Amino acid sequence: MKSETKSEIIDATNRVLCKHGYAGLTMQKIADESSLTTAAIHYHFDTKEELLNAFLDNLIERFTSKLASEATDPRERLTAFLDAVFSSPNPDVDGFPVAIMELKSQAPFQTPFRERFLGLDDMVREIVVDIVADGIDEGHFEETDPNEIAGLVTTTINGAHARKVALGEPLDETRHVLETTLELHLGWNPGSEVVA
Amino acid sequence: MKSETKSEIIDATNRVLCKHGYAGLTMQKIADESSLTTAAIHYHFDTKEELLNAFLDNLIERFTSKLASEATDPRERLTAFLDAVFSSPNPDVDGFPVAIMELKSQAPFQTPFRERFLGLDDMVREIVVDIVADGIDEGHFEETDPNEIAGLVTTTINGAHARKVALGEPLDETRHVLETTLELHLGWNPGSEVVA
Repeated sequence: MKSETKSEIIDATNRVLCKHGYAGLTMQKIADESSLTTAAIHYHFDTKEELLNAFLDNLIERFTSKLASEATDPRERLTAFLDAVFSSPNPDVDGFPVAIMELKSQAPFQTPFRERFLGLDDMVREIVVDIVADGIDEGHFEETDPNEIAGLVTTTINGAHARKVALGEPLDETRHVLETTLELHLGWNPGSEVVA
Repeated sequence: MKSETKSEIIDATNRVLCKHGYAGLTMQKIADESSLTTAAIHYHFDTKEELLNAFLDNLIERFTSKLASEATDPRERLTAFLDAVFSSPNPDVDGFPVAIMELKSQAPFQTPFRERFLGLDDMVREIVVDIVADGIDEGHFEETDPNEIAGLVTTTINGAHARKVALGEPLDETRHVLETTLELHLGWNPGSEVVA
């Protein structure tokens, strides 16, 4: 498949999910939001589920590249991680939080969705465990259980996401609370500057 | 409306949401899960949205009564609060977490749902603020910002809920992490016994 066609379908799917939710998603609406016909979309994706799996893979890929950081100091890596997670969605991917929530609520019914969310969660947990363990080894963070911190961080991120979508709460509020809590656990606040 | 009829419709709605999600919810499926006809259900609720608003009200009512506690000591109230929030769903309300997640993901599209979730959130936050402020006043908890703790607790609860539904993670794991964090903030672990 040409990558422009794929991106066009993915972007149109995002817009339909944000306007109508999973319940209102049809191939016709995706066609209406793009320059393609339903026949052209069906040529690339046999079913709605196949299209949504590709959508989710694309979304996870974009998120993963956002998480990549050049930093080596665990404190800088932690701040960069929070920046990536709590940054306002880019205009061209705006609405992704709503789209993710739509598919997350389908995870109990759609095993391929659940598997993708479990994979994403494992990846995020591993990043946090790694940063915290390195920070302890290098003497920047107080002794603590990196797995426990990873559980705290991922659960808070999931909560912040649900609150943004369902209640309209800004992500910044949660970031501040998480930073205060991390300071208590690690003895270092990810909102502060790293002094070498 | 007879309260048995109402409960029967509510329970059937819960089962349909848990089996088919919001996207698959129809009056016909609710009728199939109950002893009522679609005409009888329509007699009580004009639209699916009206029925779901009543469903959500009922659910919030049950949750509110679960949160009521006889305790007066802020430490006991905090433990009772966590017991209520993190207890495994009662068999006869089993599946409610999935049903709530289905409606939460509809909150961006359905203002009446969003208003109910905002009201529920305010109520839960106020309970936590009240417990923490009393605990500080009475010298059981260290000085801290009760609003910040309420933000931390509600976000963690929302995250735990999303993780249970989307990833199948047990609520106990989050409770443990939250208790450890609260201990750092309050100087008291809600998992420990209150010694008078």
